[in-house]
Amino acid sequence: MHCADNNPMPLTRRARDIQPFHVMALLARARALEAQGRSIVHMEIGEPDFETARPIIEAGHAALDAGRTRYTPATGLPELRHAIAGYYARHHDVVVDPERIVVTPGASGALQLVTAVLVEAGQEVLMTDPGYPCNRNFVRLVEGQTRLVPVDATSAYQLTPEKIAEHWGGSTIAAMIASPANPTGTLLDREALAALIEAVESRQGMLIVDEIYHGLTYGAAAKTALSISDSVFVINSFSKYFGMTGWRVGWLVAPLDYIPALDRLAQNLFLSAPTPSQWAALAAFDTQTSEILESRRAAFQGRRDYLLPALRSLGFDIPVTPEGAFYLYADCSRFTDDSFGFSGDLLESAGVAITPGIDFGEYRANEHVRFAYTTSMEQLQEGVARIERYLTA
Amino acid sequence: MHCADNNPMPLTRRARDIQPFHVMALLARARALEAQGRSIVHMEIGEPDFETARPIIEAGHAALDAGRTRYTPATGLPELRHAIAGYYARHHDVVVDPERIVVTPGASGALQLVTAVLVEAGQEVLMTDPGYPCNRNFVRLVEGQTRLVPVDATSAYQLTPEKIAEHWGGSTIAAMIASPANPTGTLLDREALAALIEAVESRQGMLIVDEIYHGLTYGAAAKTALSISDSVFVINSFSKYFGMTGWRVGWLVAPLDYIPALDRLAQNLFLSAPTPSQWAALAAFDTQTSEILESRRAAFQGRRDYLLPALRSLGFDIPVTPEGAFYLYADCSRFTDDSFGFSGDLLESAGVAITPGIDFGEYRANEHVRFAYTTSMEQLQEGVARIERYLTA
Repeated sequence: MHCADNNPMPLTRRARDIQPFHVMALLARARALEAQGRSIVHMEIGEPDFETARPIIEAGHAALDAGRTRYTPATGLPELRHAIAGYYARHHDVVVDPERIVVTPGASGALQLVTAVLVEAGQEVLMTDPGYPCNRNFVRLVEGQTRLVPVDATSAYQLTPEKIAEHWGGSTIAAMIASPANPTGTLLDREALAALIEAVESRQGMLIVDEIYHGLTYGAAAKTALSISDSVFVINSFSKYFGMTGWRVGWLVAPLDYIPALDRLAQNLFLSAPTPSQWAALAAFDTQTSEILESRRAAFQGRRDYLLPALRSLGFDIPVTPEGAFYLYADCSRFTDDSFGFSGDLLESAGVAITPGIDFGEYRANEHVRFAYTTSMEQLQEGVARIERYLTA
Repeated sequence: MHCADNNPMPLTRRARDIQPFHVMALLARARALEAQGRSIVHMEIGEPDFETARPIIEAGHAALDAGRTRYTPATGLPELRHAIAGYYARHHDVVVDPERIVVTPGASGALQLVTAVLVEAGQEVLMTDPGYPCNRNFVRLVEGQTRLVPVDATSAYQLTPEKIAEHWGGSTIAAMIASPANPTGTLLDREALAALIEAVESRQGMLIVDEIYHGLTYGAAAKTALSISDSVFVINSFSKYFGMTGWRVGWLVAPLDYIPALDRLAQNLFLSAPTPSQWAALAAFDTQTSEILESRRAAFQGRRDYLLPALRSLGFDIPVTPEGAFYLYADCSRFTDDSFGFSGDLLESAGVAITPGIDFGEYRANEHVRFAYTTSMEQLQEGVARIERYLTA
């Protein structure tokens, strides 16, 4: 049914339900202020500030010179599927059959495949609130429903078996978790992962695990759910740790039985991930690349180690130390009960861009903001100084 | 509801409904035969055999050297949106506001955006049978329905206002057409396009026009629907004429009112088209590139001019001369009433791979096959000789 009440343009309910990221309007305003000559400290951007590592760039050049510009199989370049399996063997000591790996146009493509094969119209998926907003929109696209489960510091902003028991309903078919998580940067350890797998599988449900921030951890390395179960769906990406955002390459690991259906869907929905990008991604696992990526990981850790106590000392409440990704999710209720207005005012008055909690859900969203440390230490220090002046003015 | 009848694996009806391309199994068999040392003439592949033109490759190198590897805006690189608008001005003498252009990961991304904003669950879209099979699967993805309208040579395998009147139902909200079309290679002239636009718009419906084979025409150039109406949705791509299949860049032109919704969807569904590919695509409109692409167009025309009479003289009925794309859709009922079996046997016995009609629909599909002339003249001649020996054996 088309809604024509206040607009003659037919537009699906789906398209109306999918909200813009509020941070996009804020980013546009930040760019406008910069165009007027204002200095803005960007702590809102969910993209690494580092350029793609040189060996990956070189592999991209080599791919172009070799004419690697035609379609690959829909499930991805066989060499890359094997290389990803090798990554699991080396880093997680887990054997993953390359046949279970589907290379996708970013993690976005993987999310789309998973929801398309698992979520029937009207069926429900459990997710954390706060959480990454695109996830629920992929479910919405195929006419499924998301049940947002409020989470807080008591569970490190993660689902628990108890919460799954409480919220699992008659139409629930899956739960989705993330480790490290966006916006909170928290991890699930092996025991917590195993307990969630058990909780979901005992209900004949499917567990979807977002591992796109793997590699970007500052204590213990993140565990992959694949080391515990072959029945989970794991989503990963070359965007974050590997620094290849604009190249658009990610992957999905699925139970082997699902691969024919995923292959058919990929053939139809995107034909293949970008070919030069897939060839370039082969270099992401090289020793030389690893050294570069590890030095960047150390830089992110240094930034977190600076920003976390600095924000706490300003009065932001960050009760769980974030051990991964490049975000801090901060309770700002000491300063405001309108974090969206607070973010806007901080930008206009102090020249610091952050993301309001409303971009990640509803639960206490008005009392939270997200800081991203995807900018230099100098910029972070300047941002903290500006926030301090703003709060004490 | 999950179907667990003959398989414990929960899989959506949607994923079961989306069929594989039968040609993929045939292609796999062809590769297996080649691995055994057999020579196979490939006339099944819907991808140009030419490498990406050198100036585009060079622009890809330049993009990598300039660090063009981070996300672009979800609607695409502003420079590329302007360049595409310039293409419409130069080639079609039509003014298209760059704001109406959304750069997508291939035409696939554009099809996904269009169906997501237009097709509510249960609503119906009219399409030709035969037609490109992915189109109906994008509609299926969002729980819409496709009504396949049988078309034949009497309408050049295209929809007509009469067919729209006949098949338009209470839940129909759009029709989709293609010019040049896959698998038939036929075009809609300006009058035919205008009549279809009128037929759909008079029913308050939306017209989606697939123009991805524009540029690959061998008589009059194809007209764009944008020269007639600002209310249509036009899909195009850098894959076919511009020879950039694996780069994954296409575009959508939409009515201006839809751009905010399309932007929100693109932010969520794919973030952006691949960045190095978008920068490379800027070179697709250069004079030097145009000269290369026009010489390739001439080569495709030479192949069509050879293959069309050759197949006709063998007894294939091709009643409408295909004036675009790189396909011939042939009635093979003189030889078989099982074109799928015929295609398989032709591969095994004669070493020629073609696509069975069943990949494009249902209507007389068993009496049709598609020949693609995406291989050299020498290979086409060898293929025709093999088919002749096969048919006269």
